[in-house]
Amino acid sequence: MSRARPRPGRFDEAEAVRLFSRTFERGPARGVELGIGDDAAVLAAPDGRLVWTVDAQVEGTHFERAWLGLDDIGFRAFQAAASDLAAMGAKPLAALSALTLPRGFTGAELARLSAGQAAAARACRCAIVGGNVARGPVLSLTTTLLGTTNQPLTRSGARPGDEVWLVGEVGLSAAGLALLEKGRTGARTRSTRRALTAFRRPRALLAEGLRLAAVAHAAIDVSDGLALDTSRMAEASGCRLVLEEEALSQVLSAELVTLAAGLGRSALELALTGGEDFALVATGAPRQRPRFARRIGRCERGRGGSWERADGRTARLAGGFDHFAR
Amino acid sequence: MSRARPRPGRFDEAEAVRLFSRTFERGPARGVELGIGDDAAVLAAPDGRLVWTVDAQVEGTHFERAWLGLDDIGFRAFQAAASDLAAMGAKPLAALSALTLPRGFTGAELARLSAGQAAAARACRCAIVGGNVARGPVLSLTTTLLGTTNQPLTRSGARPGDEVWLVGEVGLSAAGLALLEKGRTGARTRSTRRALTAFRRPRALLAEGLRLAAVAHAAIDVSDGLALDTSRMAEASGCRLVLEEEALSQVLSAELVTLAAGLGRSALELALTGGEDFALVATGAPRQRPRFARRIGRCERGRGGSWERADGRTARLAGGFDHFAR
Repeated sequence: MSRARPRPGRFDEAEAVRLFSRTFERGPARGVELGIGDDAAVLAAPDGRLVWTVDAQVEGTHFERAWLGLDDIGFRAFQAAASDLAAMGAKPLAALSALTLPRGFTGAELARLSAGQAAAARACRCAIVGGNVARGPVLSLTTTLLGTTNQPLTRSGARPGDEVWLVGEVGLSAAGLALLEKGRTGARTRSTRRALTAFRRPRALLAEGLRLAAVAHAAIDVSDGLALDTSRMAEASGCRLVLEEEALSQVLSAELVTLAAGLGRSALELALTGGEDFALVATGAPRQRPRFARRIGRCERGRGGSWERADGRTARLAGGFDHFAR
Repeated sequence: MSRARPRPGRFDEAEAVRLFSRTFERGPARGVELGIGDDAAVLAAPDGRLVWTVDAQVEGTHFERAWLGLDDIGFRAFQAAASDLAAMGAKPLAALSALTLPRGFTGAELARLSAGQAAAARACRCAIVGGNVARGPVLSLTTTLLGTTNQPLTRSGARPGDEVWLVGEVGLSAAGLALLEKGRTGARTRSTRRALTAFRRPRALLAEGLRLAAVAHAAIDVSDGLALDTSRMAEASGCRLVLEEEALSQVLSAELVTLAAGLGRSALELALTGGEDFALVATGAPRQRPRFARRIGRCERGRGGSWERADGRTARLAGGFDHFAR
């Protein structure tokens, strides 16, 4: 919107807009002077720099409704956008949500989708202050978030001598998807539950991002796989980032190792190529490493992402993560 | 993005991201500390309140490629979002663009689309500082703009005794679309040219919006038709807005009257129901009316939008504008 645009005759957008508004109009939020219902939202002049991101999740490209509830779809779309703020060390200020709804999408479905978005927004302490509702061929959610920071963390600040740190887990979300693809979700073990939660309800590591901003030299969120995103950070920073098999193996969770064995996959492959756990990769001086960050590699002079096997041989870090490619 | 997310194997997103970045990376813009290429854009702490909007244009719902060049599609999608800032009396600060591109969309097509967006952004003196590129079934453009203001203009401030003002033209864009639908674009008269330009290259009335902010009590942009948007303003303001046939007839352009006659349509109907000229409707005290605003009605105690015919009878202002409904 801040205004959703009813276009009579197309579908019941008036109802969609009412539902959308009702879900997000939860009283005044800090700094929000005007929320849903006008041509635009109005926010009080913020303290500090603005950090601003937009992320789109499109049905058939980023998700399938077969494996996710609509509330999950709303939740993870919001968290995916919030994760970009986490990677910048920013604190969320507010969000707008632009939805494209396919023909036949019901009010009840919209309520469930929006409830997932609202739950994610609450978890991020971030008000959804407006948006847009439009008709389209498939469901899509485009979320834009504003945050503030005094000290933005970029992906270009890694320097030789830095350690490479992992914050959060990698590979579990990909394991969750693999379980769903194989119909192997019956066993309600702790591993299975954790993997399904990682896939359906990922969490942007906002608190960790804020703390990294004070000590790290660079950060990026892992949305497309550790290998690919680490390579991007290396490229942006103009140095070589070496991920070490020995170090990475030590930080993989027992659950991931168990699940990978059951799936006939390599835990390391899931960790390197699986995305959408929304872990953070950061670099910084060894003595500055926070307790919640684990060392998984190092930064050297050179270029690109590099993979150092336990036997000492190295290879180029190649990306590759393709959930729903058709 | 600020980062577009290449997902190898899906389509050549890497090329899309490069093109997208190249089009918008035109050197530093005022207040932009970090543009395209990181997880998010960073803007210097702005002066004044923030005004924030998002607008989506989806192929098959809001536009068809048969009647618009890709540069036109990019241009008008940007202007549609900017128009929300105009209605709030805000000055654009920066924009993010989230694109969904269908399979087979080429680099050349993306370059043309982005060129239209870039031209619109230049016209609005507003940098595009990031965005997102994703694969989807149809082309869609979701544009989010931030602006600043010290004095936001809302749609809820109209009060009895106000005049209703029109800024800009209404109906020409709808006439342009009607000409295209009927294949009547051969006659390169001034009327035809103006209508096609209104449809393909609408302009957000940002300068007028800024000036209105100092004198008007309320404003809204006409994206869905004068009748519907005036009714929305009446509802938000809790008063009755009366559009007067006699006053409105006097401000219709000669071109609109000519075209309507040729199309066998009523000029008033085009003016009342045609959207996407992105005119502004505002209200204010008679003595405060700026020279660029024309009086088309009045505000009274009561509720809703009302249409007062030249013969004195009144009717409810009913909306209705449905470009591409299928």
